[in-house]
Amino acid sequence: MGNSFGELFRISTWGESHGGGVGVVIDGCPPRLPLTEKDIQLDLDRRRPGQSKIVTQRDEADRVRIISGTFKGKTLGTPIAMLVDNKDQRSEAYSEMETKYRPSHADYTYDAKYGIRAWPGGGRTSARETIGRVAAGAVAKKILKKQFGVEVLACVSQVKNVSTEIHPDKVTLKQVESNIVRCPDKVAADKMIRLIERMRKQGDSVGGVVTGVARGVPAGWGMPVFDRLEADLAKAMLSLPASKGFDIGSGFDGVALQGSEHNDVFRMRGGRVRTVTNRSGGVQGGISNGETIYFQVAFKPTATVLKEQDTVSVKGKNVKLKARGRHDPCVLPRAVPMVEAMTALVLVDHALRHRAQCGFSSK
Amino acid sequence: MGNSFGELFRISTWGESHGGGVGVVIDGCPPRLPLTEKDIQLDLDRRRPGQSKIVTQRDEADRVRIISGTFKGKTLGTPIAMLVDNKDQRSEAYSEMETKYRPSHADYTYDAKYGIRAWPGGGRTSARETIGRVAAGAVAKKILKKQFGVEVLACVSQVKNVSTEIHPDKVTLKQVESNIVRCPDKVAADKMIRLIERMRKQGDSVGGVVTGVARGVPAGWGMPVFDRLEADLAKAMLSLPASKGFDIGSGFDGVALQGSEHNDVFRMRGGRVRTVTNRSGGVQGGISNGETIYFQVAFKPTATVLKEQDTVSVKGKNVKLKARGRHDPCVLPRAVPMVEAMTALVLVDHALRHRAQCGFSSK
Amino acid sequence: MGNSFGELFRISTWGESHGGGVGVVIDGCPPRLPLTEKDIQLDLDRRRPGQSKIVTQRDEADRVRIISGTFKGKTLGTPIAMLVDNKDQRSEAYSEMETKYRPSHADYTYDAKYGIRAWPGGGRTSARETIGRVAAGAVAKKILKKQFGVEVLACVSQVKNVSTEIHPDKVTLKQVESNIVRCPDKVAADKMIRLIERMRKQGDSVGGVVTGVARGVPAGWGMPVFDRLEADLAKAMLSLPASKGFDIGSGFDGVALQGSEHNDVFRMRGGRVRTVTNRSGGVQGGISNGETIYFQVAFKPTATVLKEQDTVSVKGKNVKLKARGRHDPCVLPRAVPMVEAMTALVLVDHALRHRAQCGFSSK
Amino acid sequence: MGNSFGELFRISTWGESHGGGVGVVIDGCPPRLPLTEKDIQLDLDRRRPGQSKIVTQRDEADRVRIISGTFKGKTLGTPIAMLVDNKDQRSEAYSEMETKYRPSHADYTYDAKYGIRAWPGGGRTSARETIGRVAAGAVAKKILKKQFGVEVLACVSQVKNVSTEIHPDKVTLKQVESNIVRCPDKVAADKMIRLIERMRKQGDSVGGVVTGVARGVPAGWGMPVFDRLEADLAKAMLSLPASKGFDIGSGFDGVALQGSEHNDVFRMRGGRVRTVTNRSGGVQGGISNGETIYFQVAFKPTATVLKEQDTVSVKGKNVKLKARGRHDPCVLPRAVPMVEAMTALVLVDHALRHRAQCGFSSK
Repeated sequence: MGNSFGELFRISTWGESHGGGVGVVIDGCPPRLPLTEKDIQLDLDRRRPGQSKIVTQRDEADRVRIISGTFKGKTLGTPIAMLVDNKDQRSEAYSEMETKYRPSHADYTYDAKYGIRAWPGGGRTSARETIGRVAAGAVAKKILKKQFGVEVLACVSQVKNVSTEIHPDKVTLKQVESNIVRCPDKVAADKMIRLIERMRKQGDSVGGVVTGVARGVPAGWGMPVFDRLEADLAKAMLSLPASKGFDIGSGFDGVALQGSEHNDVFRMRGGRVRTVTNRSGGVQGGISNGETIYFQVAFKPTATVLKEQDTVSVKGKNVKLKARGRHDPCVLPRAVPMVEAMTALVLVDHALRHRAQCGFSSK
Repeated sequence: MGNSFGELFRISTWGESHGGGVGVVIDGCPPRLPLTEKDIQLDLDRRRPGQSKIVTQRDEADRVRIISGTFKGKTLGTPIAMLVDNKDQRSEAYSEMETKYRPSHADYTYDAKYGIRAWPGGGRTSARETIGRVAAGAVAKKILKKQFGVEVLACVSQVKNVSTEIHPDKVTLKQVESNIVRCPDKVAADKMIRLIERMRKQGDSVGGVVTGVARGVPAGWGMPVFDRLEADLAKAMLSLPASKGFDIGSGFDGVALQGSEHNDVFRMRGGRVRTVTNRSGGVQGGISNGETIYFQVAFKPTATVLKEQDTVSVKGKNVKLKARGRHDPCVLPRAVPMVEAMTALVLVDHALRHRAQCGFSSK
Repeated sequence: MGNSFGELFRISTWGESHGGGVGVVIDGCPPRLPLTEKDIQLDLDRRRPGQSKIVTQRDEADRVRIISGTFKGKTLGTPIAMLVDNKDQRSEAYSEMETKYRPSHADYTYDAKYGIRAWPGGGRTSARETIGRVAAGAVAKKILKKQFGVEVLACVSQVKNVSTEIHPDKVTLKQVESNIVRCPDKVAADKMIRLIERMRKQGDSVGGVVTGVARGVPAGWGMPVFDRLEADLAKAMLSLPASKGFDIGSGFDGVALQGSEHNDVFRMRGGRVRTVTNRSGGVQGGISNGETIYFQVAFKPTATVLKEQDTVSVKGKNVKLKARGRHDPCVLPRAVPMVEAMTALVLVDHALRHRAQCGFSSK
Repeated sequence: MGNSFGELFRISTWGESHGGGVGVVIDGCPPRLPLTEKDIQLDLDRRRPGQSKIVTQRDEADRVRIISGTFKGKTLGTPIAMLVDNKDQRSEAYSEMETKYRPSHADYTYDAKYGIRAWPGGGRTSARETIGRVAAGAVAKKILKKQFGVEVLACVSQVKNVSTEIHPDKVTLKQVESNIVRCPDKVAADKMIRLIERMRKQGDSVGGVVTGVARGVPAGWGMPVFDRLEADLAKAMLSLPASKGFDIGSGFDGVALQGSEHNDVFRMRGGRVRTVTNRSGGVQGGISNGETIYFQVAFKPTATVLKEQDTVSVKGKNVKLKARGRHDPCVLPRAVPMVEAMTALVLVDHALRHRAQCGFSSK
């Protein structure tokens, strides 16, 4: 319950931070897709700790193994199980977690829900859980690219008060990967990096905004009325650790406009129905309209700070807590591949669902 | 596919604007709950057109009938089917919709997806579809109140540039219902009403923000890692017509704070674990923490404006369109019961899911 | 929970025997399929009471109305809601049911589960519930025929000890409909009819076996390992009122053979891979192999008999019960369209699921 | 799609015969249940090859590892991932499978569906796939026993023409495990063992019937109208490799009786509503009635026989095939723990579902 995502391209993730490993099972992958560990590892490397000076310095190689679902380098149509072993486990850095609830973490709520909690490393609440998502997302991205010509990418558009404007139609993966914060605007990126470094030195943390983009999605994907494309994207994004908000197209800013200003008027262009502006963010009435899909995801500042904080103990006493260990002063750079993964998972699922219902006869 | 919502308290809505009616089936409702049409009609009246001068002037009584699932005024545990007949159908007001795509509406995307479209009144894309949601939400609200002591409400916190601060712990239904725009701050409400009236006279429209609140939710609801409470709320809200964004607690604004400022520290109060602040919005790690849940939903300005706009025809010609008919200059007042309904549906579903998995033995 | 069937072509039925009506919502129907009430009514007439002297003499016309999901005689791709009003309700015939549990009926178990029960006419346990299934099944049959060239039919192959052999490749709808018991063998049919008449006069009842057939299913439908085609067919059949068993192909009789006798050897025929025999019943490893699918469903004798029986009251007293009213002395003739409906629902669902996962590239 | 089972206690199995391993993920397990590998291994040992002279002589230890979902010997409420490595892989024994379709196996249908097939060892169609089911079933059995006092067991009641009568209320695990064929009747067991040995020597195979039993199930489990208890059991059983039929209670044999003979009359006994007979098999109207649940599952003779058979090649030529390797001459002894596992999975899922919907207030 709650650990699976998707209807037809369905992933199930499992694993705690300090258990035997973390992984994912994909059910519903189309057969005969070329797939090897290499396809997966690239995105896992973009997600992994220790990749740069502005993320946590834990050293986790996160090597993925495909255990089932492929044969001679091709998918079988059967479940694809992928596993990453847990390494570099220093439980002692977390020993205080056994007895105290970290503020704005899920320690308390897990205890309240389950009456038990794997405290080393945060257990299931650790960001290690997203390894399974990113691995599955890499498969989804490959399907989207190969089968549908759809490109998915994400980038950091804001860190605290440092922001930049993203051009969804133009931003490239190369730009995103040109710096360690994954912001395509180099000037802003430099400011963000310096800001994050300053926070790390202070033992504090910052949040920000990731912009997600999908280009080449044909008109027609999305399942009204509940499984609208933006609804499933919203759920996907709010399921990521530390995310607090989602908006698509003009989003919260669109509220400032009047209808006559906000509407995306249609024009024929290149023989296709196009919109002149794209405040809709590529989705109208829950269905893609053929324009670029883009959206924003807010991430809060990392909850773990190396300053002393008030909190309560598991026994119900008011106590002080000063976190130790190696933590991300800002989750944004590592959130980028997570946002891409969840976007790709939503899209490939909707591609399959659309195909199922509407793929029978030509219009 | 796509017209059902919820796992255990599952609703399926159906119906087009100008067909035989609209309705909903609830599957999974607990048995022996007192339930009659009166419980439902109250919220439908808050949703219906023609209720005030600032909403559409279509005259739809929207009388609900419970066709199955109750016996002598109590639920049976079997599916509850509810039906509202379609009335006051003036298809002629929509005749241009047959041949032209309204900008920022779903006319084009429905054609792109299905290759067919019920154009009178917008068919399935009409806000009439939400009747089923509101009816089912009324049942969910009753269960929450009776079985769990949980109160759900929503209110308008912003219309275009007129906004007010909502106090999630204090706002009351009486305040919300004290004016036709459903904003608990009377000063702001007056400004909002005047603004909406001005827009209507201009044939234009405005959007805004609805704040949703749930009080009394016990710690422990929510299903990590994908079916986090905020993830399911986000999906629920983004599935509403005209919604463009969702954030919970500090949301997008929380990005401006550092972790040491943003964290909600724990303290014991009244023998319970409480947070001193509530930037988390009542949810941590996807699970309720016992504090008040609150979130914001952005609604775009109504797409239908009575000004001439560029668009394309179904035959692919660039044309002009000037909408006629009776439309909402602002969807916010009628969106309030919809937000409440979707919130209640998410919560009752999670209450049942939590009970199923964790209800066996005491902690 | 429990009132929906199918993953992609998903039906949700609702309604009690003596409430406002019974109905069904289909979600996931492909768009642009010609569909009117006529397509549905034919099968409802084959299911309805009062159609012949060997079924219950209640007079229920069971006129269906399509309330949503079609426009100008074609499906929209949106939910199709269908409704049949309840008529000819003589609650007084059932008044004893309020206080006594009918043996081998669901009166007691509904009370045990829900703590409440709509006793008039059996409420949700009435065979009226199958109206929604048969209506949805008629849509499924039309899709199978039009889109895939698949023919589904069922017939009575045994009533008590009177049985006949069915030839799955050859039996025709015309043969089945040539007599009121729906057995394609006229000699056996006559015996069955006389036997059922005798039972009715005695106030007793009989059961039997329905054989289901699907011809023209291409090789490749079915979703191992749990959603095997035969597994979903088994569930579909055991979900029908009064059914007690299911077997496919050689089924229980196949146990008597050795592997070397039982195997269906492959041979090329007409350029296709074919099996020489068909003990597999058209399914191997959960996936259709291109041969005719056939299976058997056991139905118990109707539980309602007009003889005095021991039972207990709702207050826990040992009492006597002598049923009154108009009941089927044998459900088999009316079960035939139900078996067809459920078969068609399983098949169209698997057709869509197969298309979703495997429909992308040619082999 | 198709590799998960259950709604609330949901398992997802993965793995091919000759890949990296096979396994299962359980989502929805209640927290704080004591659980270690020992609880699982017992049933895996009853399922494993090489356990006796009448099953396949492949030597697979099938050691299970719990990789996630437990902490200090207790379940966390998070997904439980369990893995068994693949060993003793002699692909050469299967080399002919690469080019020829084994009669009555799934080789051809997998190719027809997916256009690709992991031929070594049968890939996903291998009975190794059931390791995940049996492992998850062991957890389900433990929950049923500890939380609900429900005992699940199965036994062989027929091998080819050798059969015995099972007494569902009395048969014990000790009787079942007292001999290698797992038939509680020693006389019949001896005959069955000799028969299977004879078959093995002839290179032929036999099928039979397994009887499943669940004792102590309270009245009230089951979800009409589609997710009836017997419907979900039927699906569960027909999803097992080589199964061809399912019937519950009197099943196909009940067809021979008249209603007045077949009905289970109610009587008060020990202050409870009981039935005098149990032809219903413990389920009425899809809901358990508090009596012992019992049912029969037909398994066909193993398709792999060591005699030369006609078949076709993957290139579409008529050819001969003579299987080699180590195969079960009869799957029944090893099917017993599989039937138990699937029964337990159905029951625990329904226990949770019942709790969710009906667990709020006392009757």
